[in-house]
Amino acid sequence: MLLSFANLTSSEVKGVETFHARRHLLNTCDLSQEEIKSIIKVAASCKQLYLKDLSPIPVLTNKTIANLFYENSTRTRASFELASKKLGATIISLDPKSSSVAKGETIEDTTQCLISMGVNAIIQRHSAAGSADQIAAKLGNKVHVINAGDGANAHPTQALLDALTMSEIKKDLENSKVLIVGDIAHSRVARSNIWLLNTLGADVHVCGPPTLVPQELSKLNVTVHNHLEPALVEADFVMALRLQLERQTQGLIAGLGEYKKLYRLDHHKLTLAKPNVKVMHPGPVNRDIEITSDLVDDLKYSLISQQVSNGIAIRMAVLYLLLSNPENWHGDSIK
Amino acid sequence: MLLSFANLTSSEVKGVETFHARRHLLNTCDLSQEEIKSIIKVAASCKQLYLKDLSPIPVLTNKTIANLFYENSTRTRASFELASKKLGATIISLDPKSSSVAKGETIEDTTQCLISMGVNAIIQRHSAAGSADQIAAKLGNKVHVINAGDGANAHPTQALLDALTMSEIKKDLENSKVLIVGDIAHSRVARSNIWLLNTLGADVHVCGPPTLVPQELSKLNVTVHNHLEPALVEADFVMALRLQLERQTQGLIAGLGEYKKLYRLDHHKLTLAKPNVKVMHPGPVNRDIEITSDLVDDLKYSLISQQVSNGIAIRMAVLYLLLSNPENWHGDSIK
Amino acid sequence: MLLSFANLTSSEVKGVETFHARRHLLNTCDLSQEEIKSIIKVAASCKQLYLKDLSPIPVLTNKTIANLFYENSTRTRASFELASKKLGATIISLDPKSSSVAKGETIEDTTQCLISMGVNAIIQRHSAAGSADQIAAKLGNKVHVINAGDGANAHPTQALLDALTMSEIKKDLENSKVLIVGDIAHSRVARSNIWLLNTLGADVHVCGPPTLVPQELSKLNVTVHNHLEPALVEADFVMALRLQLERQTQGLIAGLGEYKKLYRLDHHKLTLAKPNVKVMHPGPVNRDIEITSDLVDDLKYSLISQQVSNGIAIRMAVLYLLLSNPENWHGDSIK
Repeated sequence: MLLSFANLTSSEVKGVETFHARRHLLNTCDLSQEEIKSIIKVAASCKQLYLKDLSPIPVLTNKTIANLFYENSTRTRASFELASKKLGATIISLDPKSSSVAKGETIEDTTQCLISMGVNAIIQRHSAAGSADQIAAKLGNKVHVINAGDGANAHPTQALLDALTMSEIKKDLENSKVLIVGDIAHSRVARSNIWLLNTLGADVHVCGPPTLVPQELSKLNVTVHNHLEPALVEADFVMALRLQLERQTQGLIAGLGEYKKLYRLDHHKLTLAKPNVKVMHPGPVNRDIEITSDLVDDLKYSLISQQVSNGIAIRMAVLYLLLSNPENWHGDSIK
Repeated sequence: MLLSFANLTSSEVKGVETFHARRHLLNTCDLSQEEIKSIIKVAASCKQLYLKDLSPIPVLTNKTIANLFYENSTRTRASFELASKKLGATIISLDPKSSSVAKGETIEDTTQCLISMGVNAIIQRHSAAGSADQIAAKLGNKVHVINAGDGANAHPTQALLDALTMSEIKKDLENSKVLIVGDIAHSRVARSNIWLLNTLGADVHVCGPPTLVPQELSKLNVTVHNHLEPALVEADFVMALRLQLERQTQGLIAGLGEYKKLYRLDHHKLTLAKPNVKVMHPGPVNRDIEITSDLVDDLKYSLISQQVSNGIAIRMAVLYLLLSNPENWHGDSIK
Repeated sequence: MLLSFANLTSSEVKGVETFHARRHLLNTCDLSQEEIKSIIKVAASCKQLYLKDLSPIPVLTNKTIANLFYENSTRTRASFELASKKLGATIISLDPKSSSVAKGETIEDTTQCLISMGVNAIIQRHSAAGSADQIAAKLGNKVHVINAGDGANAHPTQALLDALTMSEIKKDLENSKVLIVGDIAHSRVARSNIWLLNTLGADVHVCGPPTLVPQELSKLNVTVHNHLEPALVEADFVMALRLQLERQTQGLIAGLGEYKKLYRLDHHKLTLAKPNVKVMHPGPVNRDIEITSDLVDDLKYSLISQQVSNGIAIRMAVLYLLLSNPENWHGDSIK
């Protein structure tokens, strides 16, 4: 009984009920510790489904889900598609770039159109920060909205999968030191992770050049560093962000050579961290820019592949908890 | 028993049989009143399937359907995809723009290729008027052809869904006054609606600037107007067309401001029509160009969302009636 | 019991077991005669599935397959997609051109990402010769790799479907004369066919202008011709290749008129071959360039549509034999 809730604590039961009642996953800043832990618990069950090559479980066969990616993404889109299919849902992937939207339709009108087609959940990625909140506010009583990235604002399933990955190493993240390295200012991944990790009681640090990691980020309740070496000291987890060359205006970094020298993770720099430190990256990695190629492949340190696997698990859990009928939670099984 | 035909009249039974024997849906000009009414009746049953969030019904699991859209479309393509999936069919969506067709293959050869792959039905949108008829004439004994729009010629499922939508308001459309406003001359939506509405005995009027609505359109058995106010008098339904800016050569409209002043639907102009007049649009709407934004959202008048919902229902009905085995019609059920 | 192996000879049983143990289909040069014949035998069974409009058989419901086409292709991609769906597998189609790969990710990292997502098989087309071998060598213990075309190197499912097609005409291809006409030097289709046909004991000839069919091709154990008429004498099968105008550098052919005069297949030239000679083409055909339009459509000679049908059958057989559990081979059935 993979998705049976018999093995949830009463706090976790409360967590899944609160999350279900929320109807949407827009960001991580207002998720409670209970909700986060219960999503992670359910995701750990879901993980068995594809690790063991099991057939899809027919728990969402009566639901229709739309992938609506206004920005390109193979990984996240494929991850949501597989998660949906493994739960038996009907999923359609729309390509708004070559469609009505190109003809000037508003995102509310596109959403309303999908609702009218019987779509129960919209997984949206959009370049505008706040766009997921916008459609949830206007049409959220008729459709579940899952934010798959909105501008530099939030990417909640990424933060949840990162937390699942870390919790597989260290059961309780309270007081764990997590260091995020790279372009924090423009990163929705960083922002969602910071919110979530703070809720879990982790000690969050960020590091990068002052142009990408300004002091004002300390408002997010993180310790701000511009030098990597001191930031690494005693770190349990180091998460490198992708250097989004295409999103940056000229002049924010002095040059790739300089960036690599100062901020690229390698085996040598890691000796400053805890001996069992783990390295993470949301992918796709620019090998030898954010992390040395050797370190990416060193499974003693690198959790990058687990992050991808856990992406499916988290998305299954989120879709299941938001879309399914709680009355079935005790009975849904995979066998 | 959603798709049981127990509740069809003998005239409707004859309609579905005639339509099934036709094998294709190419346009609305030769559909009989019997056929139209029976498709609408079956579609009304299909509508329950997604409105009630039911799982797909396994009535076309042994059929393969190909979406072949030579022109971009999110809505129509997604609508056919969902309709196919809700009937349990296998559907593949091809993107001919980036494929063999770009290499100069004829539409007959592409069709033959799909037939050889075991495809049972082709849903085709193409910029050339007559292209659906062309493949039906050459290969129609081996595959069902459903025209999803061919140039300025026909878009039959749109007209059928519009008729279903109107019939939900007014059971019998005979003598209802339907006014279509906009670029009639270049519109396959208008053409298919005019044919179908005339068959149902409606009183069809069209209105727009003389460049887009020339007097010669009266040959289609419609009353031609170039002034909106007198056209609106006593109208039961007013259907605005999308102003296809991208398809128009320069000079057909004096300017957007002028167009909006003369032809944009708004609450004030609607007072000329019947008190319970309804407003329709095939979507996507250019808000404040064809219709004021307020009117689009005013559910007292606007049927636009119902049109989208009914699109799924009509496409399910059309696919079911053309592809399924009539021997099963009495037994297929959703429960 | 479509996929029961009760009707296999002991040699064919050995063939399917050898092929299953191989884990990948990368090319045809190292496939044994036993393997080839057993794949063809299983494919002939699979063919009934779509020819008879049967529902998908649930033999790979617990498998996830990824279509990863770095080069455009409608036919091959759709063929693999349908083959996967007809076996009940979950399939996702990725478009690497508009995704992470465009961001500079290596093919190994993309493959690893898919493996982490639980993908069991990758169907890859890529412009680089050797790219399928490359990922199989590095990650082949974790995923099945099926080469759907790598540069000018190999396209093994095409050669297998061609062999199935020929074997439907002539049960044993030993000593059959097969002539391949066109741009042999740049063709993965030609290369895969030559390897496979030699293994089956066929007498393989190639023909085309010296720039496209140099004498050095005789190293591949084929008879090289630069004049079509003598090459056609006594041929059992003549396979024309698509003239890949887009792939050729200027100057390799004197001109289309000259090429057509010398190398285009037509009814008249075919009188030099065996009376029951058959004509093949991997598609899409440039009508009247490689073959006259009349000959393409003359079913006395043309096997082109059968080739497309057999593409689905071969791909079903390959996916089934590589991905399924041999313990189930005796029990899997379609009814």
